[in-house]
Amino acid sequence: MNPSMPATPDKLLFTPGPLTTSRTVKEAMLHDAGSWHFEFNQRVRWMRDELLAIADLSRAEGWETILLQGSGTYGVESVFATCVPPNGKVCVLTNGAYGERMVAMLRHLQIPHAVLRAPENETPDLALLDRMLSTDPTVTHVAAVHCETTTGILNPIYEIGQVVKRHCLLFIVDAMSSFGAVPVDFEGGGIDFLVSSANKCLEGVPGFTFVIARRDALLANEGKERSLSLNLIAQWRGFEKTGQFRYTPPTHTLLAFEQALRELAQEGGVAARGARYRRNHAVLVEGLRRLGLRPFLPPAVQSYIITAFYCPADPRFQFPEFYHRLSDQGFIIYPGKLTHADTFRIANIGHLFELDLRALVMAVGESLEEMGVHLKSDLTHELQH
Amino acid sequence: MNPSMPATPDKLLFTPGPLTTSRTVKEAMLHDAGSWHFEFNQRVRWMRDELLAIADLSRAEGWETILLQGSGTYGVESVFATCVPPNGKVCVLTNGAYGERMVAMLRHLQIPHAVLRAPENETPDLALLDRMLSTDPTVTHVAAVHCETTTGILNPIYEIGQVVKRHCLLFIVDAMSSFGAVPVDFEGGGIDFLVSSANKCLEGVPGFTFVIARRDALLANEGKERSLSLNLIAQWRGFEKTGQFRYTPPTHTLLAFEQALRELAQEGGVAARGARYRRNHAVLVEGLRRLGLRPFLPPAVQSYIITAFYCPADPRFQFPEFYHRLSDQGFIIYPGKLTHADTFRIANIGHLFELDLRALVMAVGESLEEMGVHLKSDLTHELQH
Repeated sequence: MNPSMPATPDKLLFTPGPLTTSRTVKEAMLHDAGSWHFEFNQRVRWMRDELLAIADLSRAEGWETILLQGSGTYGVESVFATCVPPNGKVCVLTNGAYGERMVAMLRHLQIPHAVLRAPENETPDLALLDRMLSTDPTVTHVAAVHCETTTGILNPIYEIGQVVKRHCLLFIVDAMSSFGAVPVDFEGGGIDFLVSSANKCLEGVPGFTFVIARRDALLANEGKERSLSLNLIAQWRGFEKTGQFRYTPPTHTLLAFEQALRELAQEGGVAARGARYRRNHAVLVEGLRRLGLRPFLPPAVQSYIITAFYCPADPRFQFPEFYHRLSDQGFIIYPGKLTHADTFRIANIGHLFELDLRALVMAVGESLEEMGVHLKSDLTHELQH
Repeated sequence: MNPSMPATPDKLLFTPGPLTTSRTVKEAMLHDAGSWHFEFNQRVRWMRDELLAIADLSRAEGWETILLQGSGTYGVESVFATCVPPNGKVCVLTNGAYGERMVAMLRHLQIPHAVLRAPENETPDLALLDRMLSTDPTVTHVAAVHCETTTGILNPIYEIGQVVKRHCLLFIVDAMSSFGAVPVDFEGGGIDFLVSSANKCLEGVPGFTFVIARRDALLANEGKERSLSLNLIAQWRGFEKTGQFRYTPPTHTLLAFEQALRELAQEGGVAARGARYRRNHAVLVEGLRRLGLRPFLPPAVQSYIITAFYCPADPRFQFPEFYHRLSDQGFIIYPGKLTHADTFRIANIGHLFELDLRALVMAVGESLEEMGVHLKSDLTHELQH
C-alpha cells in the first residue's frame, strides 16, 4: 500500500465530483493498459456504445459519443471551440457559476454571445428566451446547464429545448452532474450536444469528459476548429479511423470507467441510480430539516444531486470549523458558491447509500451541538412540542 | 478484482506512455480524495515543488510549475494559447510528428508561425535557425521537441537555446518523453517553458501534464489568453490563491504521481533513472543488433528513451503478425511513425529493468524465427563466423 496514506478508510465525499467510488471501480486501475493495443481499443469502443445506450440513442440514428481527455469544463469548451462556426453566436442561459463559466469560455474563444441571466434560485424565463431569440436572428446556438451545482437547481432542459427547436437553433447542454441519474430526452428536448464527465453520476474516477452529439451537428463546422487538443471532430475521426484516442488517454481512468458502467447496469441503470440518489437526497434534506437547517432552493426546482443549505445565522457557526469537525468524523462536504447568500453544500451522488447519509446527518447534528450553534427554525420548534 | 480483467499479469509496455508502472504507484489510486480538501491540496503543493526540485529550479529564482488536466499535447497547446501575445510569432523546429503537432496547434489557434524542418534522422540546422531569426524580426518564440519519439532522436536543446538566447527570444521545449531521465539545463539553455507529462520518465499514470515556466514569461500575456480550459495563468493563479485546481483534477492520477515522485527519489533521482534507462537501451540495441535488426538513427543522435528499428526487408516480416506474436508473449511494442522508412519502435522507459529487456530481445528472436524471417545484416554475418 501507499506508505503515505493512513490505514483508516477514506473519508466519504459528499461533493459533486470527485466522489466516493466503489472499491471495485478503483481496483480496475491496478492494471497498465497499452493505448495502442487492440484489446484496449475494443473496450473504448464498448464504453462509447454503452454511453449511447444509457442515453437511449444509437449510432444508426445519427448519434456519436466522443471521449475527451480532461475535466468536464474541457468537454463544454470543446463543443464551442469545434462546433460553433466563425459567424455563429451562442445564447447562454445562466443561473449559477457553471453558466457563467460557459460565458467565460466564449469570451476566451472570442465567440459572439448573448447572456440570459436568471437569479440563482430561479430557472430561466422561457418567455424572455423566446423574445430574445425572436429579436436576435444572429444567434445560432443555445447553451444551458442541466443541474447547476452552484445551488443544485435542476433547469428544465426539455422546456428550454422546445423554445430552441421552435427557432430551429442548435442546443448544447452541460449535463455534467445529472447524466446517468436524471433521464434526458435528447430527441424530444431538441438536444444536439450533451456534455458530461466520467466521475459524476456514472461513478467513475476523474480524468476525462465525453460529448454525446448528433453526428451532422458535430461535423457541420469541420475545418474551422479553434483548438487542436479540444478538436472534437478530429477526436471522433481518430476513434473511427483507428479506434484510438489521438493523444495519450488516461488508460487507468478508462479501465475504472468500464467497471463503473458495468456497475451501473448491475444496479439497474439510470432509473435505479436515480432512485438511490432520490432516497439519499430525501434522507439528507429531511434529516437536516429536523436539525433546523433550511435548503436554499424551493423543492420544486431542487435536484436530487446536490443541495445548498443556508448557514445558521448564529455567529457561533463558522464554516471552517464546521467543515473540519465533519472532516474529522470522516465526512467531506462542500462550501457554498453563491454570490448573495451564505450557504454550504452537500452532494449525495457517488457510491453513497441511505446509511451514509444518516451517518452524515448525525455528524452534522453533533458538530452543531459541540459548536454551541442554536437553530431556531419552525421545524425544530415543531419537534420540541 | 475487476472481473473483466484476466488473472494473468499485465503485458509489459515498451511504449513511450502509457507505460508500465510499479504496483505501488497503481495502489496509490485505491483512494478517493476530495479535491477541495486541504490535505489533498498540501499534496498538490508538494508535487509542484518537487517537480521544480527535479528540474534543479526554485520559486525563489522565479520559476513555477503548473499542473494541467489532459494529455501532454494539452500542455504544449496551453503554452501557445496562453503565453504567445496577439502580435507574437512562433518559430517551430521540427524533425518528426511531435514538431508537426506544434505546427498544427498554431494553425488551429491562428497564431503566426514559421517552420524550420529537418529530415527525421537529423537534428536541426542551427546556422539556418540563426539566419532565419536574423532575417525575421517578427519571431517572438522558438519551440522545439527535446526527444522526438517519432524516431527517438534527441534534439540538442542546449545548443538551440544558445541561438534563441542570442536573439533574445522566448524558448518553449516539449520535453514530454525526456524530463525526469535526461538532465535539462534551464538557465544555461535559455528555456522559458518546458512541458512534460505525468506518465513518461516520471513513471506515473496518464491524466495530466505540467509546465515549468519562468514566472515573468508566464504572466507576460495575461488578459489575452485564447482558451479557458488551457489558460495556464488562470490555472497558476488558482493554485496560488486556493491551492486548488480550477476544475476537477484527476485525483487518483495525482495520488499515483505523488507515489511515483517518491519512487524516483528512492531510486536516486534523475541521474539514477537515466542510468537505468541507458542500461535498458544498451541491452535492447545490442540484443536486437545481434539478431540482425538495425536502428534507424545513428548512435550520436539516438536517445536512450525510444528506438526506431528498420523492419526486416524479408517479405515474410509483417508488422501486424510480429506485433501479435510479441503481444501473445506479454510484450507490447509500438508501430513506426516515420514518413519515409518502414520501422517499428521500442521504448525502454517505465518500470522496466535489464531483465525485462533481455526477455523482450529473446521474444523478438523467437518471433522472427517462427515467422521464418531471414536477417542478412553484417552483424549476424559476423556472429556466424
